[in-house]
Amino acid sequence: MDVYSYLELVRERQPLVHHLTNWVTIYDCAQVVKSFGASPVMAHAPEEAAEMAGMAAALVLNIGTLTTGFIESMKLAALAANRRGIPVVLDACGAGSTPFRDQKCFELLDAARISIIKGNSSEIARIAGRDVRTRGVDATDVGGDLTEIAVGLATERNCTVVVTGREDIVADAGTTYTVRNGTEMMAHVVGTGCMAASVVGTFAGASPLELTAASAAGLSCFEIAAELAVKKSGGPATFKQNLFDCIFLLTRDEVSSMQRVTQ
Amino acid sequence: MDVYSYLELVRERQPLVHHLTNWVTIYDCAQVVKSFGASPVMAHAPEEAAEMAGMAAALVLNIGTLTTGFIESMKLAALAANRRGIPVVLDACGAGSTPFRDQKCFELLDAARISIIKGNSSEIARIAGRDVRTRGVDATDVGGDLTEIAVGLATERNCTVVVTGREDIVADAGTTYTVRNGTEMMAHVVGTGCMAASVVGTFAGASPLELTAASAAGLSCFEIAAELAVKKSGGPATFKQNLFDCIFLLTRDEVSSMQRVTQ
Amino acid sequence: MDVYSYLELVRERQPLVHHLTNWVTIYDCAQVVKSFGASPVMAHAPEEAAEMAGMAAALVLNIGTLTTGFIESMKLAALAANRRGIPVVLDACGAGSTPFRDQKCFELLDAARISIIKGNSSEIARIAGRDVRTRGVDATDVGGDLTEIAVGLATERNCTVVVTGREDIVADAGTTYTVRNGTEMMAHVVGTGCMAASVVGTFAGASPLELTAASAAGLSCFEIAAELAVKKSGGPATFKQNLFDCIFLLTRDEVSSMQRVTQ
Repeated sequence: MDVYSYLELVRERQPLVHHLTNWVTIYDCAQVVKSFGASPVMAHAPEEAAEMAGMAAALVLNIGTLTTGFIESMKLAALAANRRGIPVVLDACGAGSTPFRDQKCFELLDAARISIIKGNSSEIARIAGRDVRTRGVDATDVGGDLTEIAVGLATERNCTVVVTGREDIVADAGTTYTVRNGTEMMAHVVGTGCMAASVVGTFAGASPLELTAASAAGLSCFEIAAELAVKKSGGPATFKQNLFDCIFLLTRDEVSSMQRVTQ
Repeated sequence: MDVYSYLELVRERQPLVHHLTNWVTIYDCAQVVKSFGASPVMAHAPEEAAEMAGMAAALVLNIGTLTTGFIESMKLAALAANRRGIPVVLDACGAGSTPFRDQKCFELLDAARISIIKGNSSEIARIAGRDVRTRGVDATDVGGDLTEIAVGLATERNCTVVVTGREDIVADAGTTYTVRNGTEMMAHVVGTGCMAASVVGTFAGASPLELTAASAAGLSCFEIAAELAVKKSGGPATFKQNLFDCIFLLTRDEVSSMQRVTQ
Repeated sequence: MDVYSYLELVRERQPLVHHLTNWVTIYDCAQVVKSFGASPVMAHAPEEAAEMAGMAAALVLNIGTLTTGFIESMKLAALAANRRGIPVVLDACGAGSTPFRDQKCFELLDAARISIIKGNSSEIARIAGRDVRTRGVDATDVGGDLTEIAVGLATERNCTVVVTGREDIVADAGTTYTVRNGTEMMAHVVGTGCMAASVVGTFAGASPLELTAASAAGLSCFEIAAELAVKKSGGPATFKQNLFDCIFLLTRDEVSSMQRVTQ
């Protein structure tokens, strides 16, 4: 896979990426989109969520700090996105920690067509119907083969499934990519998971006909930047700042020489 | 204009700047006020929004992630600010992107006296009644002369109008300032526009009898700090951190030698 | 007091710390918990607040951007925490600035058992019934002896009271600690107060049978990291980033040689 070609499309097309996301990492979701050269917008009022999705190239839904009303706005936005045929990413943040989160994820999946479901191992396993428990928003060990779970869910829901972790799995019914970029430091920073969903949305928005490949390419770019950033960082917070800088400055040479995506 | 004298007043008077703002950049709005030596407070419950405005030296309203209920709290706060005669800044964030935003801006402008309207080119043009479209929260090209639009709106609404961009225009019915400080890097950072509104509120709170001059001075200081910060930064995120540091440390010499404000 | 031993327990037990907190500093509250090696989660929907508290090792309530509905979720979470016997921290952020805040603090204190009340001098004095006024969220001078006020409130409410300031006071009915670590730079950063409450929650979650000692130890660690961070920082924003890094890297030697906690 030529990962850089997908980044190039993001920078050329500068997709507008509409978010209904959580209040913890909302800034970082916006800044990661902007650092890649695209354009973030956040708007959740029911009176405008659909219209804003109607201007966008992709929609990212993240249930990190969900409420019932917020989920209703997500449905309006997702249906508008469906009508225009733009990709919809669902970050199933915290699925498996409370029945409320699980139920609202399933509601969203049933109410609209979700193009890409993203989560960590236990979030995805829970959405795939496994009996697992997420610890707040932190992944727990999942019995069973993750690739099998991801492909099963992708096939069932006819979508792309992204499982983040030390190795990321990006699968649809026919194709599975493994992304082996990244650094352990990402796990010490609040929000790298949410940012990953926004990155996937950004790359999907720029390459809407290749959602699975674009998702894998986006994660690879994000994590290559993380590998570059960690070298000049003293800890998790300076790492996060350098991560944004490295994303902004990412070159063709860096991506080509460092990409570790296999099919 | 002696820009530094306005900064000196901010540091001396340490105005309390009350915000009802958006959830994306709320931290940066608070930190920019604090970095200038003033005191931010955020409180949006309808039960206390008016009372908090009643303690403050200025009120900043930013509709970035507006909801209907939030706008009602803004009205209560703005009316309380009006009763006490403190300046009210409206950041028309995203005006022109959806009819809902436009309508809520006009509602606020009609419900209370807004002292300063701030936006990028297409936001201001929309509030001035032009048929333009904002791309999410990003400015688009506006047909027509921006200064003319700003002066027209300032005259119509009897207020100060601030248009941010490569060059900032700060106008009331009688006077127009142009601020030519800043760096292109500001456009790659989420929140510099929102921060600009908070800066304007801070300087207006310290110099309530000279809103137009104080707004221009505030933008100049903010953007001088940006010019200093970009020199030591590797990209947009380290730039933002250095921007706060440079604001905190801004000296009379730096401001005097670098200010580019013309009337 | 062997401050480091409390940090060691945090790193070993990695407590899950549930927050219902404000929208300004929510990210920093999460990141400070994570930087100490523990696990933050934020969930405020009434449908899941209790259940999330039921998985956690500690609960942190912060009323910085309170609304009536949010306080109701806090009560549900606090009652669930009480049922499980985990510590509940209340950051009385802005108490003394509006009657609404005072009233909601008292409601929370009456509705559930609060283990630790944390605030700056005027917030705590107000909760202790003194006729003082907080300036937004900034402390004002309090007539009277702070230790006396803290011990009085701790005795009345049968809890631990934490008063942050140049010197921190941590008191219950029987024991008072003074923490003399920290740096003046903390006052120039939005959110250090909120972060202190999250730190207290983290240490309390790891040492639930020693709430007062654990609170003092947590503050000492947080402020030792601040002393280390300020040396390599150019201003308030780079200081905050370095603060997280220094917390993440804090060693036994640093803590042992720098701790300034007296009983």
